[in-house]
Amino acid sequence: MIEAINLAEKLEQFDEHWSPKIVGELNGQYVKLAKFKGEFVWHQHEAEDELFYVTRGELLIQLRDGEVRVRQGEFAIVPRGVRHRPVAEQEVHVLLFEPRSTVNTGEQQGERTRSDEWV
Amino acid sequence: MIEAINLAEKLEQFDEHWSPKIVGELNGQYVKLAKFKGEFVWHQHEAEDELFYVTRGELLIQLRDGEVRVRQGEFAIVPRGVRHRPVAEQEVHVLLFEPRSTVNTGEQQGERTRSDEWV
Repeated sequence: MIEAINLAEKLEQFDEHWSPKIVGELNGQYVKLAKFKGEFVWHQHEAEDELFYVTRGELLIQLRDGEVRVRQGEFAIVPRGVRHRPVAEQEVHVLLFEPRSTVNTGEQQGERTRSDEWV
Repeated sequence: MIEAINLAEKLEQFDEHWSPKIVGELNGQYVKLAKFKGEFVWHQHEAEDELFYVTRGELLIQLRDGEVRVRQGEFAIVPRGVRHRPVAEQEVHVLLFEPRSTVNTGEQQGERTRSDEWV
């Protein structure tokens, strides 16, 4: 069955930061929603490009040689192999588009690693 | 270089209906923006699932056995092989996620077929 997925309704269903929830799947990719606040870990994804689309707030993506600010209504794509750290000074709501194989902490598996879960 | 892509700014750069413009590429997929108004052609994509995320207005996706209304802030995924027809009673702004190989009219190549173009 094809249905319309409402981002705001899905975002109401969880509060945890840095724990992306799956809301759609297509072509071997997942669509995820996440809430970020504070600083994440530096990491990279060896084989996955990652899209961050900001639906609320402002996301800072720190890079080895600079940073990118992504504001509400904007997206940025971090290519595979690029070391990055997402930082949210205030809470940010983000839609992610990435391959099913993507682990949130990339190669830095540890206490901040989360397994994928639908919401 | 990683940059933030502003959807509203990209949407200001074209007016043509039913002619998706590429604004990003990752993992063999394109991110596109499109403006729809009126009725499109019935079609299907043999090997591509297609995501429609509505950033303005309301999109009706007609299906062989029903229809789905996708409102601002919502998305719907039409799986490969599912015959569909997008209809926009008023102008709708849509973000599309789909494989690079996707043709806008699917198997119905003809006067409404458009080639991919970056904006």
